[in-house]
Amino acid sequence: MANQTNGNNGASNTPIEDEVQLTTRPLPASRKVFIEGKQKGVRVPMREIQLSPTKVGGNGTLEENPPVWVYDTSGPYTDPSNKIDIRKGLEPLRSEWIINRGDVETLPGISSKYGQKRASDPKLDHLRFLDIRKPLRAKTGCNVSQMHYAKKGMITPEMEFIALRENQAMQTFRSEASQGDRQYIQHPGNDWGASIPSEITPEFVRDEVARGRAIIPANINHPELEPMIIGRNFLVKINANIGNSAVTSSIEEEVEKMIWSTRWGADTVMDLSTGENIHETREWIVRNSPVPIGTVPIYQALEKVNGKAEDLTWELFRDTLIEQAEQGVDYFTIHAGVLLRYVPMTANRLAGIVSRGGSIMAKWCLSHHKENFLYTHFEDICEIMKAYDVSFSLGDGLRPGSVADANDEAQFGELETLGELTKIAWKHEVQTMIEGPGHVPMHMIKVNMEKQLAACDEAPFYTLGPLVTDIAPGYDHITSGIGAAMIGWYGCAMLCYVTPKEHLGLPNREDVKQGVITYKIAAHAADLAKGHPGAQARDNALSKARFEFRWEDQFNLSLDPETAKSYHDETLPADAAKVAHFCSMCGPHFCSMKITEDVREYAAKNALEAEKALTLGMVEKSEEFKQKGSEIYQKIK
Amino acid sequence: MANQTNGNNGASNTPIEDEVQLTTRPLPASRKVFIEGKQKGVRVPMREIQLSPTKVGGNGTLEENPPVWVYDTSGPYTDPSNKIDIRKGLEPLRSEWIINRGDVETLPGISSKYGQKRASDPKLDHLRFLDIRKPLRAKTGCNVSQMHYAKKGMITPEMEFIALRENQAMQTFRSEASQGDRQYIQHPGNDWGASIPSEITPEFVRDEVARGRAIIPANINHPELEPMIIGRNFLVKINANIGNSAVTSSIEEEVEKMIWSTRWGADTVMDLSTGENIHETREWIVRNSPVPIGTVPIYQALEKVNGKAEDLTWELFRDTLIEQAEQGVDYFTIHAGVLLRYVPMTANRLAGIVSRGGSIMAKWCLSHHKENFLYTHFEDICEIMKAYDVSFSLGDGLRPGSVADANDEAQFGELETLGELTKIAWKHEVQTMIEGPGHVPMHMIKVNMEKQLAACDEAPFYTLGPLVTDIAPGYDHITSGIGAAMIGWYGCAMLCYVTPKEHLGLPNREDVKQGVITYKIAAHAADLAKGHPGAQARDNALSKARFEFRWEDQFNLSLDPETAKSYHDETLPADAAKVAHFCSMCGPHFCSMKITEDVREYAAKNALEAEKALTLGMVEKSEEFKQKGSEIYQKIK
Repeated sequence: MANQTNGNNGASNTPIEDEVQLTTRPLPASRKVFIEGKQKGVRVPMREIQLSPTKVGGNGTLEENPPVWVYDTSGPYTDPSNKIDIRKGLEPLRSEWIINRGDVETLPGISSKYGQKRASDPKLDHLRFLDIRKPLRAKTGCNVSQMHYAKKGMITPEMEFIALRENQAMQTFRSEASQGDRQYIQHPGNDWGASIPSEITPEFVRDEVARGRAIIPANINHPELEPMIIGRNFLVKINANIGNSAVTSSIEEEVEKMIWSTRWGADTVMDLSTGENIHETREWIVRNSPVPIGTVPIYQALEKVNGKAEDLTWELFRDTLIEQAEQGVDYFTIHAGVLLRYVPMTANRLAGIVSRGGSIMAKWCLSHHKENFLYTHFEDICEIMKAYDVSFSLGDGLRPGSVADANDEAQFGELETLGELTKIAWKHEVQTMIEGPGHVPMHMIKVNMEKQLAACDEAPFYTLGPLVTDIAPGYDHITSGIGAAMIGWYGCAMLCYVTPKEHLGLPNREDVKQGVITYKIAAHAADLAKGHPGAQARDNALSKARFEFRWEDQFNLSLDPETAKSYHDETLPADAAKVAHFCSMCGPHFCSMKITEDVREYAAKNALEAEKALTLGMVEKSEEFKQKGSEIYQKIK
Repeated sequence: MANQTNGNNGASNTPIEDEVQLTTRPLPASRKVFIEGKQKGVRVPMREIQLSPTKVGGNGTLEENPPVWVYDTSGPYTDPSNKIDIRKGLEPLRSEWIINRGDVETLPGISSKYGQKRASDPKLDHLRFLDIRKPLRAKTGCNVSQMHYAKKGMITPEMEFIALRENQAMQTFRSEASQGDRQYIQHPGNDWGASIPSEITPEFVRDEVARGRAIIPANINHPELEPMIIGRNFLVKINANIGNSAVTSSIEEEVEKMIWSTRWGADTVMDLSTGENIHETREWIVRNSPVPIGTVPIYQALEKVNGKAEDLTWELFRDTLIEQAEQGVDYFTIHAGVLLRYVPMTANRLAGIVSRGGSIMAKWCLSHHKENFLYTHFEDICEIMKAYDVSFSLGDGLRPGSVADANDEAQFGELETLGELTKIAWKHEVQTMIEGPGHVPMHMIKVNMEKQLAACDEAPFYTLGPLVTDIAPGYDHITSGIGAAMIGWYGCAMLCYVTPKEHLGLPNREDVKQGVITYKIAAHAADLAKGHPGAQARDNALSKARFEFRWEDQFNLSLDPETAKSYHDETLPADAAKVAHFCSMCGPHFCSMKITEDVREYAAKNALEAEKALTLGMVEKSEEFKQKGSEIYQKIK
């Protein structure tokens, strides 16, 4: 593939250079389409996949197949009509919405001490994003969170955007069995007590955000993002992690990783950088990201104290929150539930504390023999969150790191505390989601979801997998994809991806893609199982294409058209094979799909008995046969 | 990797040549060990994985980690003390057991007409296995099935072998929470009403086989196999499909594919060849296979009538069954449930009939407007099965090929018929399992298991996935691995693997490995969730190694040590990194696992409060703190 950068080439901290290649081509047979909303500027991008017609009968008649529209996380990068320049960043499409609400002020400059220091350091000039806007902040006494607006009864443009986006233009889809056009039906799901409506309206979005059952991560300093929602009554979302770490990757590689992740379907991206220059890297990522960006601010705070957890202070952490909030980070993972009393509960674990944030706070608590300062200063943090509309992702610092440690008292103790903190955040009208495990065998997953819904009053759950076994390093996208699909079905709102390199090393481009595709599978399987309206449309269209030997359509409707096509071409590379009515599994002489066509024709045209069976209904027909004592239904003696 | 043949190079029907390279090296840090039984010749191979010691404290004290024994499907190929010669086949370790039962006779030669024709064709001399034994058959009036012996109260050597094999020498493992040595405990599972004992005894194996709840596929003409069992109260098994097809692969490639599949954990292998010389290929595979071999005899029957389904006859099919039974095939997929009255029920499906066997029989039924001859001749088939101890795998010819078609009346109608046929097979004391879907969204999987258990009176279920969505061709090992893990947990006894090439092309070596590893993950996750005794041992050992930074042990305990190690080396190739107390995720300066060690030391040594907490128990301790009103537990106002 020509249009790729190498994800892990060891080059460090080089500035943006001309040779960086961004992945901007559209996916095959796809174009960007837009659904216009009623409020100004609401224009929801989707991906239209064009299909070829079906050959009907033997006489060459063609029947059109309507294009399929799918949810599109890839932003302007897959729209060739956009000129992409990562030096300038994306268009700030929400700016007018934010300003028009009349509750923000433009600050004279960066508020955080650290941000100011970095901005004034001439040695960083070559790394710096060129055109940094002055930060916005809520006017004194104002709350600019989407939850605040929702509780006031306001339907923001963000909410309308999301309603149109979640519907996927699927109103014609029917959630019932039918003998009619099978392409437009889907199975009723089992949503385990969720409240998924047949159509997502802007008012429904508002109501869900108001009651805390969904969040819209959308910092007022990240006007470039295309609004999305996280909640159990919406499509299940996935997150991809990027970030330069121990070894390293360059800034432009990080931007390309973000583009690459969203191309394959990442709904949000977390920047987990721990290396040098993470302030500057973050600026580049946020300015170019069409999806919400999450961070774990304690990672950067730890860098600022040279890795000595015990040297962390509330003042330093506070400065970090403001620094990142003014850059536009949309959600913060905050490990405020790691309480001093929970820490010794992990001492007897097989794998101890595996969350980095959790272990940092545990070490701080023990070193000072004091309660976690994120807990004691939680209301101070809320004040910052609501001034920029940063959402909480309350971290599960004590999540299990082995199946042996799953669902123990440390984990569930912390979850109870996260429930308390949720209510405090809601009192401040700060949007909140809750992070979850981890390593959990299948039969112990559901209780995680149930306890979270109960303890946190249905605030969205956001889990890492869970991995259902520990024995497959190198395949932990799969061990965790199994758990992710299940917990997504049970009600988890967002699934944090795991790559094949989990536990072993840093993911490269191919690993990131494997992780994202695996998690798209998990999230979509969960949508089908919950019965999300219209979720089955793409499955049906692909299966119809498969049955009709429309090979190119089958590839193009898949989550990864390039891989599907290349796998097909390994066995049958000729172009003729793309229109052939057989495949490599059975070969040209015998094909079960072809026989089914014969069966269908036979049933429809020739067999009087079969025709009668179809007309009368199957049960009656078989009864009729039995009553007649027809010899073709011989009893086995 | 040096020791591999190319799985798909297009060479056709070449004889065994010297350049064929078989994969025979042991897995890293592993050696073959044996558990001796009481009956003569019962010697159960297992794989012992050796571990390095744990460094305890800072003074260099070492604490041994006992080796881990794992179930081993790889046969003699991973035992360097064996001299492998695929021209001669494996040692017939069961021969004496079979002969000693006194109920078989050695036939003067091959009984089937087709077998005789092939044997006497000099043009096939170069393809033929050299030293074909004369076939065995039950003496007139005898039944040589393991079910027959079980019902008579006999504990065969096969049953004792299986009991030792299933136990995995795990009697020390405790299925309860404990504050003791966490390495030897596991979570109690949820087995959905199965009857899994804490120790698998030979008598338990006998009883399960007698009541039809488990099968031991073990044709008397396949004495080379190492006995294994398929049933809901045993470890979940997986099957890998091999077979030359449309394009082709050579005989030695097929043998190597079988070796390759069992190396990574395939419990049985199905030979689904549809090309030329499948008779000869099958002989090579059976003679060299340490695992049971399954086939779909209708595929070969169809070859014999040049692909014209309507030309199939009972006589021709019967000859094919005898041909394959005398070669030693251990189980036959028989699509006897595809009844004429069910066929029109598929006409309105989105994806029609996707099973090859199902579509062949559907076409035959419609062409003749007669009932399926496999159904009308079912008792004749039973007579053949019990004369060689071939097990039924009753095929689900009407399984859904798209999520839209899941759980429809055609599928469940056929399942009811398979239930009827199970009872007939059991009347003949023929071992029987039932095949299942296919494409099923997550929330519709459980009812498949429940209906199967009810309709077939707990005869083992054997499913293909199910795939939980249709939209990811190229990743269907994952879409199906999710469904496979779930249905395995619900009670499915064997999972038929799906490779990344499913729906697209023929799997190569790497695809086979991906499929097998994914399904080992699914099966093991199911064992953990069901609470199979000792299932968690390997997870615990691996997690302990991970926590203690014993990198090589972590690799060696994983399902795929080579991949795990190579992924690690991509980021941190130096040998020093294999013993370093950090990894590439966090780097040397900060590491959550390292901090946990600090926490543990702190908790154990320094903190009086923490020590007291550990001694008194956590709940009491936290209560005590609350009652004292200690200032370190500050309430948020």
